[in-house]
Amino acid sequence: MFVERLDKARSLMAEQGVDVLMLSVGADLPYFCGYEAMPLERLTMLVVPCDGAATLAVPRMEAPRVVERPEVFEMRPWDETEDPVGIVAGLAGPAAVVAVGDHMWSRFLVELMGAMPRAQWRRGSEVTSPIRSVKTADEVERLRAAGAAVDRIAGRLQRGEIELVGRTEADVSAELGRQILAEGHDRVNFAIVAAGANAASPHHEPGGRVIGAGEVVLCDFGGTMVGDDGVGYCSDITRCVYTGEPPAEFDELYEVLFEAQAAGVAAVAVGAAAQDVDRAARSVIAGAGYAEYFVHRTGHGIGTEAHEDPYIVEGNREPLAAGNAFSVEPGIYVPGRWGARIEDIVVASPDGPDPLNRADHRLAVVA
Amino acid sequence: MFVERLDKARSLMAEQGVDVLMLSVGADLPYFCGYEAMPLERLTMLVVPCDGAATLAVPRMEAPRVVERPEVFEMRPWDETEDPVGIVAGLAGPAAVVAVGDHMWSRFLVELMGAMPRAQWRRGSEVTSPIRSVKTADEVERLRAAGAAVDRIAGRLQRGEIELVGRTEADVSAELGRQILAEGHDRVNFAIVAAGANAASPHHEPGGRVIGAGEVVLCDFGGTMVGDDGVGYCSDITRCVYTGEPPAEFDELYEVLFEAQAAGVAAVAVGAAAQDVDRAARSVIAGAGYAEYFVHRTGHGIGTEAHEDPYIVEGNREPLAAGNAFSVEPGIYVPGRWGARIEDIVVASPDGPDPLNRADHRLAVVA
Repeated sequence: MFVERLDKARSLMAEQGVDVLMLSVGADLPYFCGYEAMPLERLTMLVVPCDGAATLAVPRMEAPRVVERPEVFEMRPWDETEDPVGIVAGLAGPAAVVAVGDHMWSRFLVELMGAMPRAQWRRGSEVTSPIRSVKTADEVERLRAAGAAVDRIAGRLQRGEIELVGRTEADVSAELGRQILAEGHDRVNFAIVAAGANAASPHHEPGGRVIGAGEVVLCDFGGTMVGDDGVGYCSDITRCVYTGEPPAEFDELYEVLFEAQAAGVAAVAVGAAAQDVDRAARSVIAGAGYAEYFVHRTGHGIGTEAHEDPYIVEGNREPLAAGNAFSVEPGIYVPGRWGARIEDIVVASPDGPDPLNRADHRLAVVA
Repeated sequence: MFVERLDKARSLMAEQGVDVLMLSVGADLPYFCGYEAMPLERLTMLVVPCDGAATLAVPRMEAPRVVERPEVFEMRPWDETEDPVGIVAGLAGPAAVVAVGDHMWSRFLVELMGAMPRAQWRRGSEVTSPIRSVKTADEVERLRAAGAAVDRIAGRLQRGEIELVGRTEADVSAELGRQILAEGHDRVNFAIVAAGANAASPHHEPGGRVIGAGEVVLCDFGGTMVGDDGVGYCSDITRCVYTGEPPAEFDELYEVLFEAQAAGVAAVAVGAAAQDVDRAARSVIAGAGYAEYFVHRTGHGIGTEAHEDPYIVEGNREPLAAGNAFSVEPGIYVPGRWGARIEDIVVASPDGPDPLNRADHRLAVVA
C-alpha cells in the first residue's frame, strides 16, 4: 500500500516538476510510510526524490519507534550532535524544486532555505492532497467505522443519557472525550460543548459555564482511530440538544438549519463543484433571512487528518471526485443569543451522497 | 505584562535588524499576547512591526475566542472568502527581514514567500527565545506548582498506589494522564510508560504490552497548567520503579544513573555553559563504562513549551542565565534488555541549582 502511494506521489511530482518531496510532522508521513513523527524539535523527515529511493531521517533515540519497511524507505538515524538539516539537504542533493509538508515547522524550512539557497519551495499538499483526498473503499470503511462510533455517542446525548444541566461545558467535554476513546478511537481531536449564547461561537472553547435548563447545547466532537498499519482515520460530528422545550423562535431557526444541511448533503455529486455544496446549504439559510448568521464555509475534507482537502467553500470550483470525504456542516449563529450547527461526514460516490453519520438530525429535547 | 514582553521583543528586533515578527501556532503567541491559535488550516497570525502597533489576524469565526487586549494588539478578523496570507503580507508592508514563529506551518511560509518575494526569512525563536528562556520569579513559581503536581503522582507511583503488574503500558499511561489533569493541569503533554526491554527506547510509545513482575517500568510524564492570563506552564518528570527486587546488575546501572543525574543537577550554575551540565552527567556514565548507552542529550529548556531553549547538549556553549529552566535527565538504555532515566526540572539561580522536582530519586521497588 505504501509503495503504491509513493509511486502515485512520484508520478504527480514528475507531472508538476517537483524534484524532491519532504514530509515531516502531520498526516502525510503516516499516510505515505506508516510512521508518525513526534511533534518535537528533533527533525524527522522522509525525503522522497522523484526518481530515487526514499529515506527517513529520524532522531536515533526515536528510531526504535519506527516500524521498518525497507521496501518503502531506508532509515537514516541521526545522533544528538549531528546536523539533521544538513543531512536532509544532502539527501535532497541539487534539487531545484522541493515540496515540503504543509505542517512542517517553519524553523526547519528557514534552516533548509539556508542549506539549499537555490531551491524553489512548494506546498507539499500540491503533491499529497490529490492522492489523499480520494479515499479507497478500505479508507471509506475506516471512516465509516469512526463515524458509527461518534453516532453512538450522539445517540446517548440525544436520549439524555449524558447529563447536561448543572454540569460545566468543560466537564461534559471531558466526558465526550472519554466516550470517544471508549468507542475505539486512539485520540480525541476536539470536543466542543457550547451552551446558550456560547453556541454562537463556532469554535467555542468549553469552559466553566454551568449548563442550565432551557438552553441549546451544541456538541461538536471527533477523534482518530488508528489501524494496525499505524494510519489513523478521523470522525467528526455535530448535534444540538435543547435542555427543555425550545422556544418557537429557536425551532424556526433549527428547521431552516435542518433543511439547509439536508440540501447540502443532497447536492453532493461526483463532478459537482465543491462550492455547489456550499451554495446549496447557504441558499436555504439565506432564503430564510439568516445569511449574516452563517459565518463559515460549509465543510472540510476529512481522512487521516481532521481537516484536509477538499474544502467546501465558495470559490472552490474543483469538481468532487468519487471517494472525496468531507463534512457538510452549516450553522446559524446569533451573537449574544444562541446558535446551532448540524454536521455529517459525507462521501461522494457514483451512486450519490453516502453519509457516514446517521444519528438523528432533529433537535432532541433532553431533561 | 504582554506589553512589556512585546517591548523586549521590539528591542531585540531592532538589535538584530528584524523588521517584522510573525507569530502563529505554538507557544510564542500566548506568551506575547495571551491568545493561543487553533492548530488548524485557517491562519491566525500576530504581526509585530519593529516600530508599529501589533495586529492579530484571526479567522472571523474564531474571533469570539480571543480575549481582546487593545493595549497589546488590534484585531483583524478575516472572512472565509478572504485571503489571509495577503492580509498578513499587507500588514507587514515592505519588510525586508521577517522572523516567523518556529512552529508556524510551512504551507503559510511558502505562501508568504510568494506574497513577499523580496523578504528574507529568519527563525522567530531568534527573537523570542532569549526572552522566553529567562523566567521571572512568577514564572518560576508557576513551573514549581506544575512540578509539585507531577511529584505527587510520582510519589503514588513509587508507593505502589498506581497498579502496574497485569496492566498494559497504554492503560497505565491513560491513568497517568487522568492524574495529570486531576492534579490541576489543563493538558496532558505525554505519559510515556515503558516496561522491561521497552524502557531501552527513550521515546517509547506505550502500547499493549502487559507489565509483568520483576521488570523496570520507566514513567516520563507531564502536562501544561494554564493560568488566568491564558498562558500555560509545563511539567516534566521521569521516575523508574521495579516490580519486585531488581537484579544486582540493574542496581549497579541505576546507581550510576543516580550519581550522574545528581552530578548534572550540581553542575547547574549561572554562567556555566549549557554543555557543562551535559558533560557533568555524561562523564559519570562514561566513567562507569556505559557511554554507548546514553544516546541523548542531558536536557531541554521548559516553560510555556514542553521543549524549548536552552538545550543541555554538547556544543551548546551559551552560558546559563539566572531564570533558565530546563530538564536534567540522563538515561542508560541497553537495547533488548532494559533502560532507566531520572529527570528533574532545575532552575539556574544565583544561589545555585533550584530543582523543581523533589520526588525520591532512588529506585522504588513496588509489588
